Amino acid sequence: MALYDRVALIGLGLIASSMAHAMRQGGLCREITGHARSAETRATALEIGLCDRVFETAAEAVKGADLVVLAVPVGAMGAVAAEIAPHLERGATVTDVGSVKQAVIDAVQPHIPAGVHFIPGHPLAGTEHSGPRSGFATLFKNRWWLLTPTDTTDPAALARLRGLCEAMGANVDTMDAPHHDLVLAVTSHTPHLIAYTMVGVADHLRRVTQSEVIRYSAAGFRDFTRIAASDPTMWRDVFLTNKEATLDILGRFTEELFALQRAIRLGDGDHLHEYFTRTRAIRRGIIEAGQDTSAPDFGRVAEGATTTGKVRER
Amino acid sequence: MALYDRVALIGLGLIASSMAHAMRQGGLCREITGHARSAETRATALEIGLCDRVFETAAEAVKGADLVVLAVPVGAMGAVAAEIAPHLERGATVTDVGSVKQAVIDAVQPHIPAGVHFIPGHPLAGTEHSGPRSGFATLFKNRWWLLTPTDTTDPAALARLRGLCEAMGANVDTMDAPHHDLVLAVTSHTPHLIAYTMVGVADHLRRVTQSEVIRYSAAGFRDFTRIAASDPTMWRDVFLTNKEATLDILGRFTEELFALQRAIRLGDGDHLHEYFTRTRAIRRGIIEAGQDTSAPDFGRVAEGATTTGKVRER
Ligand SMILES: NC(=O)c1ccc[n+]([C@@H]2O[C@H](COP(=O)([O-])OP(=O)(O)OC[C@H]3O[C@@H](n4cnc5c(N)ncnc54)[C@H](OP(=O)(O)O)[C@@H]3O)[C@@H](O)[C@H]2O)c1
Ligand SMILES: NC(=O)c1ccc[n+]([C@@H]2O[C@H](COP(=O)([O-])OP(=O)(O)OC[C@H]3O[C@@H](n4cnc5c(N)ncnc54)[C@H](OP(=O)(O)O)[C@@H]3O)[C@@H](O)[C@H]2O)c1
Repeated sequence: MALYDRVALIGLGLIASSMAHAMRQGGLCREITGHARSAETRATALEIGLCDRVFETAAEAVKGADLVVLAVPVGAMGAVAAEIAPHLERGATVTDVGSVKQAVIDAVQPHIPAGVHFIPGHPLAGTEHSGPRSGFATLFKNRWWLLTPTDTTDPAALARLRGLCEAMGANVDTMDAPHHDLVLAVTSHTPHLIAYTMVGVADHLRRVTQSEVIRYSAAGFRDFTRIAASDPTMWRDVFLTNKEATLDILGRFTEELFALQRAIRLGDGDHLHEYFTRTRAIRRGIIEAGQDTSAPDFGRVAEGATTTGKVRER
Repeated sequence: MALYDRVALIGLGLIASSMAHAMRQGGLCREITGHARSAETRATALEIGLCDRVFETAAEAVKGADLVVLAVPVGAMGAVAAEIAPHLERGATVTDVGSVKQAVIDAVQPHIPAGVHFIPGHPLAGTEHSGPRSGFATLFKNRWWLLTPTDTTDPAALARLRGLCEAMGANVDTMDAPHHDLVLAVTSHTPHLIAYTMVGVADHLRRVTQSEVIRYSAAGFRDFTRIAASDPTMWRDVFLTNKEATLDILGRFTEELFALQRAIRLGDGDHLHEYFTRTRAIRRGIIEAGQDTSAPDFGRVAEGATTTGKVRER
């Protein structure tokens, strides 16, 4: 069932291409137009059928669209909004999929003309891959899609956008933008920075060669490298635009790390054991909340694994 | 083809039970005996056929064994070695699977009687599950199994043990114990400590509830919680016994993190972008080395994912 007539995707990377697949699969709109910076990406989008039509400029792509999705790096949102503003249809909805919300609102909202609804959003779904070929229709399935409307957001426009997200398989929740940015600083942004840092440390060592690090990379490190392989532009923009919350969480992280470091130095095994026991509970909560499976995969699927291994409570 | 006659497994958790399954599947020994601390674990080991016979004491379990595998937490190795020492067969091999090597050697070697071969080892394979039901035969398949023999290690005993590891599907490499401990501090121990810390930070926040953290845990954080769900006793022992190397790597980590934190504070996007670009290369190396797949899984299997998503070089 078509929820929108014409959807314009600005930026044709992982998120936009996954939306295109999901919208096509569900017949959620009649037509998809698109724009990306490079001719190569635009050609690919046509070739693999992401878009019915692509345009050299974002301004052309949004003409006649009743939904415009900004799916470019956070730092590029403002310029795109300025460019498309004069060409937006009255009554249209503009949303974005940026990983940071307050900075996108500050950059985009001032350009939005009267009669156009701007409803910021963020799907909590991703992989470390990017580009128009990396998308797939089920990316959003059973994932959260956070929308950050304000008191003045049009309820009908919000309900319609929510319907689209849900039709793509996502669970929708709403919250205010600053709270979104703090929650994401904890659950996503700071963990990414830490993973990047750890992988960087490994790269710098003299006594351990890079080939050894690669050869013997155990579970923990493999997960970090997966995180740290994500798009540098996207993540640069995330840290620059969610600066306050990231620095706040980083400060707390360093404090806790120093306490554990001290326990190691002093040989305080009880402190370590107690700390590690507490962190297990969060993991259990995540599995119970259905955001992950308990299968021991660590980057591969363990064929023949029993699923009855006990997670100890001691 | 049986490589050993009777194998005694001391400790019957994830690693030992995986060895039992793999040895049975390959017919790699004639008989498996075992011991674990609790009557419950011993009963389970009999019930699911891990061991042909279990014993209340480690001393009884090793009698008549030509291979003894110490598969208890690193901190328990010394006491177990002291207990079994008088009961070891002349000509037998003792190995261990502990995640730290020098501390195990210091704790175990003094107890080993003349005529018994002690060859320390460490399979680089694991999940966050523990206990006798968590093992599976393919855990070691295509994973590294590091052995840390010395100049005086008997070549024939080493070749035989290597043959067993390979028959269970592992690739064997040898190195000296201090180097092992440094490599693992980088690729496994410090990443685990960092994951524990980040999960702990999330647990402490006031403005973000635990249920929100769990609900909206994005990819990065989910991987951390998986790591941080590992056995507290095992990891306490790892940090206490690989103290020097872990503190060394932690120091470097903090230094790098402060540099990135400063770049965020100053809004130095070039520094961030350049750093994040470098870390991608390591990831590519790991995929090429066959230690992981490029499938975008992040804790779940993405059905219908194309594998052609580009990892950008810019
Ligand atoms: N990846 C994730 O895990 C994830 C998850 C949730 C939200 N997000 C957010 O989703 C947005 C897009 O991320 P993505 O992963 O889909 O990115 P991506 O795969 O790297 O694709 C980005 C797209 O934006 C285009 N682009 C970049 N700068 C542009 C500009 N100035 N004008 C027009 N187009 C431009 C690129 O064009 P070219 O191909 O021509 O370079 C590309 O098509 C970001 O804001 C990100 O924060 C990402
Ligand atoms: N898990 C991994 O990812 C991994 C990877 C590589 C190496 N390792 C190393 O392998 C070893 C075993 O780890 P695991 O994951 O197999 O552990 P696990 O699943 O927690 O099992 C540990 C086993 O040791 C027994 N045990 C503990 N203390 C004992 C004692 N004092 N005397 C006799 N038995 C005792 C336990 O008995 P009960 O069941 O009765 O408590 C249990 O059967 C550790 O040294 C670890 O560092 C682990």
